[in-house]
Amino acid sequence: MALDPSFEVAFAPRSIAVLGASSKERGGGNGFIKSIKEMRYKGNMYPINPNVEEVLGYKCYPSLAAVPEVPDLVIMAVGAHRAEQALEECIARGVRNVHMFTAGFGETGEEEGEKLAERLRAIAERGKLNIVGPNCMGIYSPRGRISPWGRLPLEVGPIALISQSGALGGEFVRRAPTLGLRMSYAISYGNGYVLDSTDFLEYLENDPHTRFIGMYLEGVRDGRKLLELVRRISPKKPVVILKGGLTDAGARAAASHTGSLAGQDAIWSAFFAQSGAIRVDSLEEMVDVLQALVRLPAPTGSGVCLIGGAGGTSVAAADICARAGLEVPTISEDIQKELREFIGVAGTSIRNPMDISMQMSGPQDFIRALEILDRDPVIDITLMVLYVFPKRFGWGKGVLDLVPPLIKFANSSRKPFCVATKSFTDHVQTERDRLTLTRMFTKAGVPVFKTVERAAMALHRYAEYYRSLSDRLA
Amino acid sequence: MALDPSFEVAFAPRSIAVLGASSKERGGGNGFIKSIKEMRYKGNMYPINPNVEEVLGYKCYPSLAAVPEVPDLVIMAVGAHRAEQALEECIARGVRNVHMFTAGFGETGEEEGEKLAERLRAIAERGKLNIVGPNCMGIYSPRGRISPWGRLPLEVGPIALISQSGALGGEFVRRAPTLGLRMSYAISYGNGYVLDSTDFLEYLENDPHTRFIGMYLEGVRDGRKLLELVRRISPKKPVVILKGGLTDAGARAAASHTGSLAGQDAIWSAFFAQSGAIRVDSLEEMVDVLQALVRLPAPTGSGVCLIGGAGGTSVAAADICARAGLEVPTISEDIQKELREFIGVAGTSIRNPMDISMQMSGPQDFIRALEILDRDPVIDITLMVLYVFPKRFGWGKGVLDLVPPLIKFANSSRKPFCVATKSFTDHVQTERDRLTLTRMFTKAGVPVFKTVERAAMALHRYAEYYRSLSDRLA
Repeated sequence: MALDPSFEVAFAPRSIAVLGASSKERGGGNGFIKSIKEMRYKGNMYPINPNVEEVLGYKCYPSLAAVPEVPDLVIMAVGAHRAEQALEECIARGVRNVHMFTAGFGETGEEEGEKLAERLRAIAERGKLNIVGPNCMGIYSPRGRISPWGRLPLEVGPIALISQSGALGGEFVRRAPTLGLRMSYAISYGNGYVLDSTDFLEYLENDPHTRFIGMYLEGVRDGRKLLELVRRISPKKPVVILKGGLTDAGARAAASHTGSLAGQDAIWSAFFAQSGAIRVDSLEEMVDVLQALVRLPAPTGSGVCLIGGAGGTSVAAADICARAGLEVPTISEDIQKELREFIGVAGTSIRNPMDISMQMSGPQDFIRALEILDRDPVIDITLMVLYVFPKRFGWGKGVLDLVPPLIKFANSSRKPFCVATKSFTDHVQTERDRLTLTRMFTKAGVPVFKTVERAAMALHRYAEYYRSLSDRLA
Repeated sequence: MALDPSFEVAFAPRSIAVLGASSKERGGGNGFIKSIKEMRYKGNMYPINPNVEEVLGYKCYPSLAAVPEVPDLVIMAVGAHRAEQALEECIARGVRNVHMFTAGFGETGEEEGEKLAERLRAIAERGKLNIVGPNCMGIYSPRGRISPWGRLPLEVGPIALISQSGALGGEFVRRAPTLGLRMSYAISYGNGYVLDSTDFLEYLENDPHTRFIGMYLEGVRDGRKLLELVRRISPKKPVVILKGGLTDAGARAAASHTGSLAGQDAIWSAFFAQSGAIRVDSLEEMVDVLQALVRLPAPTGSGVCLIGGAGGTSVAAADICARAGLEVPTISEDIQKELREFIGVAGTSIRNPMDISMQMSGPQDFIRALEILDRDPVIDITLMVLYVFPKRFGWGKGVLDLVPPLIKFANSSRKPFCVATKSFTDHVQTERDRLTLTRMFTKAGVPVFKTVERAAMALHRYAEYYRSLSDRLA
């Protein structure tokens, strides 16, 4: 079923009813009511429960029939055994859009669950219901001021997420803001019995707010449609896909989770090769790749200048980049010559990776080196590795002093410039310093990756996307 | 050159002279003096500089000749141009053990550096000097109360590290204590012109304090000797090796770093296959694998029971384990039946991965499930994934309540039991909670890995070590 135009209002509903509001503070659907309230939702909220007077300051109604208007969105948080009747009530009240949090269908693997699922589909078709779910968290939409994951940014941004998992969706919407990334929507759609990933994808194709799309998929009902859609959309709006359940163990988990038939690694490999989708292997990698895509211009190739020294860690960083599929080309002779005019020999290297931190007297010489390297034609991307030590080792301040000139350089650089942090210890203070650095850069629009490994993988995916794009256009 | 028995005292020197003490607080070799002082070193410390009266409370001497005894260890922190003369002074004073921090030799790639290196080797041979370095941080030895990396634990433990890189060595000695791991020594040996990795390895073979060995190598002078040694030692004391510079870019960095000829991926792959060494791809992975080896008994196989639910993250964890090379076998029918007696159907899975967290009413049922699973013969290792949310999401406490019963279970379990933490956000508070959890478990001897990815890789390496060991013994 394609997404009915009537679903549009679900992203910015003027009214919401919650079936299954509870007298217990955190019971039933109260989490959704609380979460939407924290988003400073401006529409009408109708908790529904015949035995409750008020929920979180909202007047509670005995039934959907008693609500004074037809809600633009119904959130259903009743037990699976009551789901059919509740859907009939929605139809009777003229409701079109339903988010079913309710779980306990095909994903249980029991016969009764699958039968319930079939009946649910039939009801939806008959009543023309747009159903998100069941077994999912629903919709985060900053422009609609709704969220199932508590208070999230109210600003609209260019990234949309379509996630079959509520937990991974929740992880994404919390990680993205730490990197200063903003979203148009996040849709957790669970079992996807009525509206599936392809329906949401089709909607996002023409959504003016969305420029980048992330997807977490376990199973897909119409694989051919997904392929066609991604092939068509990905040149305009990059589509980053995490496919869960590609291993046998993962497939078994996916069946238990959303009742999906996952697995079939070969089929999915072909899908990625043909569709132009960007493949990632974890949720964090998805955030990383989207950060690169959102923040950086298209690169001219995959040659990385790796900056940030300290001997063995420099060797490790080079190995990591090369293993991720990036090139770390030797700096051109004439550029090396220019650098040697002010960079001493002992404890440094200027061939790439650049081991120049020890020798530097201050930010000035460092930036001077960056400016010279920026002219080297073998370099397409600059990756600066910033080391984070706990303050008690006394090396924190020097790094902080570098940030403002680095940001200035990044904004004037001809090439994509980004930062990877590298913590040398597991301490709260180290993480605090790392996050301080992260905030300083991301606020200025400079991408920051948590580790060299993650930077390398994200840059590889990002460079590959543009390379394959130009191949397809050629 | 094999390690001369006279070198033994360098691990617990009764006296240390520092050539190149400075009038500036952090200049020259003062960092080493400060660091050793912080270790509450009980021997005699002799800073040397003719123009300085006192360094960090120690009387300063004009020359090595003026020091009142022959120091068991000389730390040399003078410029490369003064190194030869300084070594001659050591010989004249009867010194046998020298740690050369001094850099600027073969690693510069300049002809003059390589020539200096050759002369250095000749001087060492003539004067029977045991030289650690040059271009390195030297020795951490808790029983000797010496450290080049500031205050580190004074307790002696079973892990020794041999590292060609001072930065990676420093990272290791700081990460290990966070996991409650203790060390016998860490040796940062840099260019290894005189004493090479094989010399230290040979020493550790019979060292009574050392039961596990980690090595970071860039180049090795005598590859055949390394192969023979590791083959002989690894069945008694596991040897975990990180080989830096296996990619072209990494090899170039290694040449600049320690003047080593790295690269030759195929040769090193053969080395790992033949020697019984445990291969790791990063410093953190080395710490992880050693944690598993130190804390866990030998497993009966590589079948993992993956515990800790939440839908999509459960799918992801299963995929991660399977990709790392572990098995995630389906739980036996009769065990599943026992579990279903008290675990409901909706939102759970008991096939493996186990998605049972949502359904659990409290620690009691959870532990009961673990105890039943512990009897399943298809399971060799139990990996529990603990999710960490910032407290403001309100789910932190439930996790903490689980820790004491989990520790009790871990200590009575028949099978290796370990924990992986999984943070859902990048916040200081999340990291604080994660480290609190980590401390609680590691204090009780239960291994904790930072992420599911790292747990899976470490468990795979650890299980593989024991599997190949039993193959070799068969």
